[in-house]
Amino acid sequence: MLPTIDDGVHCGNVEVMKGVPEPSPDLLKRAGAVRLAAAGLAQINDALRAKALQSMADALEERADAIVAANAEDLERSAAEGLAPALMSRLKLDAIKLAGAIDGVRQVSGLPDPLGRRQLHRELDQDLILERVTVPLGVVGVIFEARPDALIQIASLAIRSGNGAILKGGSEARCTNEVVMKALQLGLSRSAISADALALLTTRQESLALLRLDGLVDLIIPRGSNELVRFIQDNTRIPVLGHADGICHLYIDAAADLDQALRVAIDSKTQYPAACNAIETLLVHEAIAASFLAAAVPAFREAGVTLRGDAASQAIGVQEAATEADWATEYLDLILSIRVVPDLDAAMEHIRRFGSRHTDAIVTRDSVAADRFLAAVDSAGVYLNCSTRFADGFRYGLGAEVGISTQTLPPRGPVGLDGLVTYRYRMRGDGHIAADFASGKRCFNHRDLPLL
Amino acid sequence: MLPTIDDGVHCGNVEVMKGVPEPSPDLLKRAGAVRLAAAGLAQINDALRAKALQSMADALEERADAIVAANAEDLERSAAEGLAPALMSRLKLDAIKLAGAIDGVRQVSGLPDPLGRRQLHRELDQDLILERVTVPLGVVGVIFEARPDALIQIASLAIRSGNGAILKGGSEARCTNEVVMKALQLGLSRSAISADALALLTTRQESLALLRLDGLVDLIIPRGSNELVRFIQDNTRIPVLGHADGICHLYIDAAADLDQALRVAIDSKTQYPAACNAIETLLVHEAIAASFLAAAVPAFREAGVTLRGDAASQAIGVQEAATEADWATEYLDLILSIRVVPDLDAAMEHIRRFGSRHTDAIVTRDSVAADRFLAAVDSAGVYLNCSTRFADGFRYGLGAEVGISTQTLPPRGPVGLDGLVTYRYRMRGDGHIAADFASGKRCFNHRDLPLL
Repeated sequence: MLPTIDDGVHCGNVEVMKGVPEPSPDLLKRAGAVRLAAAGLAQINDALRAKALQSMADALEERADAIVAANAEDLERSAAEGLAPALMSRLKLDAIKLAGAIDGVRQVSGLPDPLGRRQLHRELDQDLILERVTVPLGVVGVIFEARPDALIQIASLAIRSGNGAILKGGSEARCTNEVVMKALQLGLSRSAISADALALLTTRQESLALLRLDGLVDLIIPRGSNELVRFIQDNTRIPVLGHADGICHLYIDAAADLDQALRVAIDSKTQYPAACNAIETLLVHEAIAASFLAAAVPAFREAGVTLRGDAASQAIGVQEAATEADWATEYLDLILSIRVVPDLDAAMEHIRRFGSRHTDAIVTRDSVAADRFLAAVDSAGVYLNCSTRFADGFRYGLGAEVGISTQTLPPRGPVGLDGLVTYRYRMRGDGHIAADFASGKRCFNHRDLPLL
Repeated sequence: MLPTIDDGVHCGNVEVMKGVPEPSPDLLKRAGAVRLAAAGLAQINDALRAKALQSMADALEERADAIVAANAEDLERSAAEGLAPALMSRLKLDAIKLAGAIDGVRQVSGLPDPLGRRQLHRELDQDLILERVTVPLGVVGVIFEARPDALIQIASLAIRSGNGAILKGGSEARCTNEVVMKALQLGLSRSAISADALALLTTRQESLALLRLDGLVDLIIPRGSNELVRFIQDNTRIPVLGHADGICHLYIDAAADLDQALRVAIDSKTQYPAACNAIETLLVHEAIAASFLAAAVPAFREAGVTLRGDAASQAIGVQEAATEADWATEYLDLILSIRVVPDLDAAMEHIRRFGSRHTDAIVTRDSVAADRFLAAVDSAGVYLNCSTRFADGFRYGLGAEVGISTQTLPPRGPVGLDGLVTYRYRMRGDGHIAADFASGKRCFNHRDLPLL
C-alpha cells in the first residue's frame, strides 16, 4: 500500500538530515566507549551509584579553584568578543555558584533510586511470573548553551539514573566545561563506575553529528534557546526531551476574585520573565475586564511590564496595540499581550490555537468553569488560582529536573530522574510453552502479585 | 553553537519528508473534524465510552451480512489480481471471524478505564494541591495492511481510551473496510460520542499525507510488514508505536535442562513462525552443544524447520551453512539459524549486535547466569526458561494489544490500552504565587496524599 524501500520514494536517513554531518570515526569510537561504560553502569547498584555522585562532588570541590580560573578565562574572552550581558551572566561560574552546583550533585545523590522499581508483578500461570521493572535508557546526549553548571547538573542526573552521557556545551564556556568534565571523570575514576560513562564533545561538527548517533544515543536533551531546540527536533530521529516554545496563558474568568487574579497575574509574568513558564498572554472575560484592568494596568506599569492589548482592552486602558503575531510570541521579557474574550470557550479556543501546551491557568471562584478548564485544556500543566511559575521539577517535589517537555507522550511537563529511565518486561518460567495454552492444556490465571 | 533557522543549514519539514505529499485541503478538513470530535470524546465518562463500544458491537452485528458480502467481493477481486495465499487468508473476514472481532469489541468495552487515573497526588503547600492524571493522547493514526479485523480492534481500543482515530487499510480490503467503518460510525451515532471520532482514509495519497499531520495526529500505529513500519518511522515526525524487526534469540546455556531447552526451542520457533516474537536464532553454549543438537536436529527436522548453522554446529549435525546475513534476518518462516558460543558473554554480545531488542530468552538452571542475562540483555522482554511466544498483550494480561514496541522509551514491549493515554499535571491553589516561596515567606512541604 505504501511505497517500500525499493520503490525509490523512500527517503531514508541520508536525505532526512541534510546539513547534519556524518559522525567521524573518532566520534563513533568515543560514543561506543560511552555506550560500553553505560552497559556496565546499568549493573551498578544504588548505593555505589549514590557514592559515585559524592565522589564527583568531592572532585569538583578539589578542583574548584581551577574551575573558577577557567571560567574567568572564558568570561574574559567572551567579553572581548562582545557576548551579550544576559549570556555573560549565564556563563559566569564563580565560587558561590559552583558551590551551589556541587550541593546539587550531593542532593541528586540522595534522591530515591529510579531503577529497579517493579511496576507490574503478575503470575500468568503456576511458576510463570511476569514483572515490569525500571531500567536505564542507556546513553543520553545533552546539548546545552552558555551555562556551564548545566553540565554538572545533567551529568549527575545521568549517572544517578544509570545512564552514560555525551555532552556538548557552548563554545563560550569551553575552558570551564573541560576543567569541569575532567573533575567529574576524576570523581568517577575513584568510584565503581568507569570514567568513560561521561564524554564531552568540543567541536560544532561533533555536536551536529551527535544528532545522527541513533543506536548509540537513546535520548537527546537540549538545554537552550527555542531555536536550538527546534533545530534539534527537526534534525534527529533520536527522541528529544524538551520544548521549543513556552507560550503560557492566564485566563481571568468572570467569577474571579479580583485581588487574587491580579496577584497571580503579576507573579506569572514578572517573577522571572525569561522563564518558559512565565505567561505571555492574559485572557480576560469581558464581564470583569473593566474592573480588572482598572487595577491591573497601573500595577503592571509599576512592575515595568509593557502591555499590548486587543481593541477591547485598549478601549479600557491598555495603551499599545497587539497584533496577530503577538498571540504567537514568547517574549521572555517584561511584555504581556492582553485579550478580552466573551466567555470561557473563547479563552480555551485561544489557548488551543496559540498555546504551546506548556502550562495554562485559570483564576475563578466558579467551580464549574474551573473543572471545565482543568478537564479540557490539553497542556502539560493546567492550573487553578495559582501562578504558572510553579511549573518546575523542584517545585513539584521531583527533587531535580532534566527539563520540561511539551510533547504529548510521556514524560510530559517537568521531568525528573524518572524521565531518564524506561522499563523492561522480565519473565521467569519453568519450561512453559505457548502451545500448551493454545491447545487449552493450560490456562492463564493472570493473578497480580504484590509489587514489593 | 548549532546552526539556527537563519543559517540556511536547517532542513525543516519540507526536505525531511521528501516524497511524502502535502495533505490536501479535504484531508486537513477531515482530520480537523476528527480532532474536534476527539476533544469532545475526551470529556465523555467511562460508562458512556463503554456503552458506545457495545453500540459499535451491536451495529457490527446488524451489518454482519453486508460486511461478509463486501469481504467476499474483496476476496474475489484480490484472487483475480493474484494476491498471495497468505495475504488472502489475512484478508478473509467470514461470519466466524467477524463474530470473534465483535466479541473483541465487547471485551474492550469491559476493560478498566485507562483515563482519569491519578498517578501522583501531592500537597505542595497548604491548599496548593498537585495531581497527575491520565488523559487521552488525542488522535491516533493507524495504517494497517490486509487484515480488516484490525480496523475493528484498533477503532474500539481508540474509542475506549478516549481518542479519535484516522485509519487507513490496505486497498485489498477496501469494500470490507468501508462497510465496517459505516457500521462503527452507526454505532457511535447512537451513543454519546460523535461519529466523526473515527475516519477512514481510502487513497494511497491520503495515507502518505497522514504522516504529515503533526499537530492533528499524536501517534501513528502501523500494523503490517517490516517495510511498512520502517517507511513510516523514516517519514514522519509524529511518534510511531511499533517495531520494524523482531529478531528474537534463545540462548541454551551450559547449565540448561536439555528436555526443557528443546521444548522451549521448538515452541519458540514453530508455534507460529510468522509472528514477531518467534525466534530466528538459537545460540548454544559449546559445552552442551553436542548433546543438545543430537536431540534438537531431528526434532526440528520433524517439525519442518530448516536449520542453518555456523561451522561449529555444522560439525555436530546441522546441514546447511549460515552466512553473516542470516544473523540479521527475520525469516518469519520455518527456518532457524544456529550458532555455538563459548560462553554467556558471547551470547549476550551476539544478541546486542544482531537483536532487535524485542524478546530474548535464556534456558538455564544456573541462577547466576539467569540473573546476569535478565539484568544485562536490553530488550523489551527478557525471559528465563519459557518460550518467547509469550510476548503478547493478551498473554501478559493487558486485555488487548495495540502493538509491540521495540523503542527504548516507554511504552515498550506489548502495549495495551495504557499506551493510548498520556498524563497531565493539574494544580489547584488559592492565590498561591511563586514569589512567596522565592522570598522564603512560604515553604513547600511536598506531602504525598493518597492516590485514591
